[in-house]
Amino acid sequence: MKPHFTHLKDHTRAQLMALVDKAIALKKNPPKDRPLAGQSLAFCFMNPSLRTQVSMETAAASLGAHPVVLFLGSDTWQVEFEDGVVMDGKTAEHLKEAVPVLSRYCQAVALRSFPSGTSWDEDKVEPYLSAFKKHATVPVINLESASGHPCQALADLMTIKERMDPKGKNFLLTWAPHIKSLPLAVPSSAAEIAAVAGMNVTIARPKGFDLPDDVMARVAASCKESGAKLAVTDAVPDAFDGQHVVYAKSWGSLQNYGAPLPADAAFRTRWIVTQEKMARTDKGIFMHCLPVRRNLIVRDEVLDGPASVVVDQAENRLHTAKAVLLNLLAEENLS
Amino acid sequence: MKPHFTHLKDHTRAQLMALVDKAIALKKNPPKDRPLAGQSLAFCFMNPSLRTQVSMETAAASLGAHPVVLFLGSDTWQVEFEDGVVMDGKTAEHLKEAVPVLSRYCQAVALRSFPSGTSWDEDKVEPYLSAFKKHATVPVINLESASGHPCQALADLMTIKERMDPKGKNFLLTWAPHIKSLPLAVPSSAAEIAAVAGMNVTIARPKGFDLPDDVMARVAASCKESGAKLAVTDAVPDAFDGQHVVYAKSWGSLQNYGAPLPADAAFRTRWIVTQEKMARTDKGIFMHCLPVRRNLIVRDEVLDGPASVVVDQAENRLHTAKAVLLNLLAEENLS
Amino acid sequence: MKPHFTHLKDHTRAQLMALVDKAIALKKNPPKDRPLAGQSLAFCFMNPSLRTQVSMETAAASLGAHPVVLFLGSDTWQVEFEDGVVMDGKTAEHLKEAVPVLSRYCQAVALRSFPSGTSWDEDKVEPYLSAFKKHATVPVINLESASGHPCQALADLMTIKERMDPKGKNFLLTWAPHIKSLPLAVPSSAAEIAAVAGMNVTIARPKGFDLPDDVMARVAASCKESGAKLAVTDAVPDAFDGQHVVYAKSWGSLQNYGAPLPADAAFRTRWIVTQEKMARTDKGIFMHCLPVRRNLIVRDEVLDGPASVVVDQAENRLHTAKAVLLNLLAEENLS
Repeated sequence: MKPHFTHLKDHTRAQLMALVDKAIALKKNPPKDRPLAGQSLAFCFMNPSLRTQVSMETAAASLGAHPVVLFLGSDTWQVEFEDGVVMDGKTAEHLKEAVPVLSRYCQAVALRSFPSGTSWDEDKVEPYLSAFKKHATVPVINLESASGHPCQALADLMTIKERMDPKGKNFLLTWAPHIKSLPLAVPSSAAEIAAVAGMNVTIARPKGFDLPDDVMARVAASCKESGAKLAVTDAVPDAFDGQHVVYAKSWGSLQNYGAPLPADAAFRTRWIVTQEKMARTDKGIFMHCLPVRRNLIVRDEVLDGPASVVVDQAENRLHTAKAVLLNLLAEENLS
Repeated sequence: MKPHFTHLKDHTRAQLMALVDKAIALKKNPPKDRPLAGQSLAFCFMNPSLRTQVSMETAAASLGAHPVVLFLGSDTWQVEFEDGVVMDGKTAEHLKEAVPVLSRYCQAVALRSFPSGTSWDEDKVEPYLSAFKKHATVPVINLESASGHPCQALADLMTIKERMDPKGKNFLLTWAPHIKSLPLAVPSSAAEIAAVAGMNVTIARPKGFDLPDDVMARVAASCKESGAKLAVTDAVPDAFDGQHVVYAKSWGSLQNYGAPLPADAAFRTRWIVTQEKMARTDKGIFMHCLPVRRNLIVRDEVLDGPASVVVDQAENRLHTAKAVLLNLLAEENLS
Repeated sequence: MKPHFTHLKDHTRAQLMALVDKAIALKKNPPKDRPLAGQSLAFCFMNPSLRTQVSMETAAASLGAHPVVLFLGSDTWQVEFEDGVVMDGKTAEHLKEAVPVLSRYCQAVALRSFPSGTSWDEDKVEPYLSAFKKHATVPVINLESASGHPCQALADLMTIKERMDPKGKNFLLTWAPHIKSLPLAVPSSAAEIAAVAGMNVTIARPKGFDLPDDVMARVAASCKESGAKLAVTDAVPDAFDGQHVVYAKSWGSLQNYGAPLPADAAFRTRWIVTQEKMARTDKGIFMHCLPVRRNLIVRDEVLDGPASVVVDQAENRLHTAKAVLLNLLAEENLS
């Protein structure tokens, strides 16, 4: 089987921890010898990006590879994923051709494809990413799909590990207000990686905003394996008590999929991250994957304060990207 | 005169065959020594692309050059080609400046510019590409214009040569259904290169869908020179009998330029490529330049079957791109 | 303090002249040894570009660095610059995060951001560029802002210096017609650099089209320091008499900010640059930053004639870009 890096669940705890440790080592000693020289890597985007594009592009370049950045469906043809369809509509190219072709030009193919936000049943199968995995003949990297954002999760764990031994520490994933119903990829992956790292996981969210069942099952299994606690609550600000890590993120409701989020002021005030809430933590650090809407998700006072590690967290996308690329593509392979 | 690679007709049979042979050699032994190091190459797109952009970009990078990908008129200013015009409208920059300027920054400039599809008289002069050729001071590469797609043609012939000695073999270009009236560049270049290679050429198309007269004259001349046969017919599926290569492609009518294609089911059934039709060939391979609309141009059964060589054909864009770039830009020059 | 290259006024005459001299030397002997190898540089565009993107990109690549080209707000999230705002609107990411994050991935960040054209008071503070300077932890390069285009100015002076010793020579900045009210960045920087170089500066513009007061104060101070003359006039074509350099450019009125330009034929005829006007100069060269609207700004006869140096001027963007990049990023630093 081709090695891919698309979902945390495909990798053992040891493999994920080794990737993070490799990234920490790469941060200290960036490789100078262009280990991926002569390779080209395709980074395909169906949604906007800043950290993901630039971290992958600069990681690739610094390792000697050529990054090809493609805005799929806008710069290129609109792509089809359905099998057996008569293509007499808007889509001009099937991924059955596009992905094998990219696999001939490039040594890896990566895709960012958000869910449509109209049907979770349709979104959760991740049709574009699944087609990439099915048809690629080179490693596939997930740059965020409906169900997960594994590259972000590695950077998240790296950022925690730089500050504490995560085992037994307290990790709070706290839902936050937003103007849009956002994908569940980042919170799912953040909860999963925290549990993999042996942290006690608390998920604070309004009722009706639970993470997908399969994610929760994996989080519960990891917690059980490491002897850590798992709690799901809507009791904020109490949930902040004694936390070592506060990870804020907004996401949409699966029960009421794609519906607008509640926008009344009291609800937003209840869920925004403030200095007052952070004061209840055990010197907790504040994390967010970025981009973050200031004073909606979190107040300036927190983001601009000493507890915020969001820029380091973003920087770590670079180092973990290098680890992933080297792991998949360099001759000395970790896994 | 500056060497360019814009039209098959500018090159001798020997030159074209040498380019294909060089590409075959490059596929076996990709150069590792960055022969184009320090060069930058401008790839300008006025239309979508996947294979063309990525094959050129990865070919350039693998040879050590820096590819500059420009979406002309969207990322940049809208460009003018008319001489003497008072530029008080939408176009902000004349190619009289843009192309010489790019020639100062880059060691080659390449352009994809489709026909407008409203007037063949206007389109056939290829105003944008002609302005590139007129004003460039470095080699110009045609990445598909109204009249031809020479880079595709090289990959087409390479794909055939990898499987058979083309001389005396039977090549069928078969028109196929589509929802749009498409450019004639690919079928014209495919017919031309097959004839150049000494193949017997059959063009199966509905009445009213003939290729341009100058293309047909060149195809006829090449066939005559090599002693090959040339036939134009609307007799499908009979035209498939005994073919060694089936090249499917849709294109618009010159007589009824830009008009919608017939869309009735019987007509589409008549012209779609099926397994039943392929069975009449002499173990013929199935070719298409991609992107291909599945089950409109060709049925899944053919495209997913053993006769289909479309992904290899697309891969060969990479190797022929390297041959073209080396030919134009490397010190050891073929021609 | 971090070194930046964002405004001419931040640099001494000696520093600017040294950059131009370095560019002239780099043109003669392009560096082959990849002095910026391993670096990545972010070039952010909020407006179209041709010369700026391609010259920076090819300069970076030729020095061994990887250029990251970002169309900020279209490929990426829409960015916010206001402090303290509740981000519940269109902007999804604050430059307070975006710029520090880019600073972690890249060794320099560059920005093109035009003025909005609705309020000079708002535009002249250059909110996006100012946020870049405030939040970057690596050098910032201005690729054109409301108040200036320093990279263009270096290329302008280099182009003059290749043809004459500028000291004591006559420089005419002449306003020209256009269909839009354009930014004042280029004419401001052109006047400033000509004055810095010791040229006598004449600015010919319709009444009501004066450059900003602070620009004029700096131009006057430079002229005074070098003993050169400064004149502002609407007397065309007389202003062309005896000029060694004619620099044409259209710009909008500060007094009537963002308003459409006069479009009547007599006015346009009065201000367009013609061969007849050029004949009054002292063998003057014709300069323009490009893109130039032919037969609106300047007649074909001038642009296509021997006095025009616009393509050389554009080429010099490449060499001056290399000088700026080396100055900011290479170990052997000029300043």
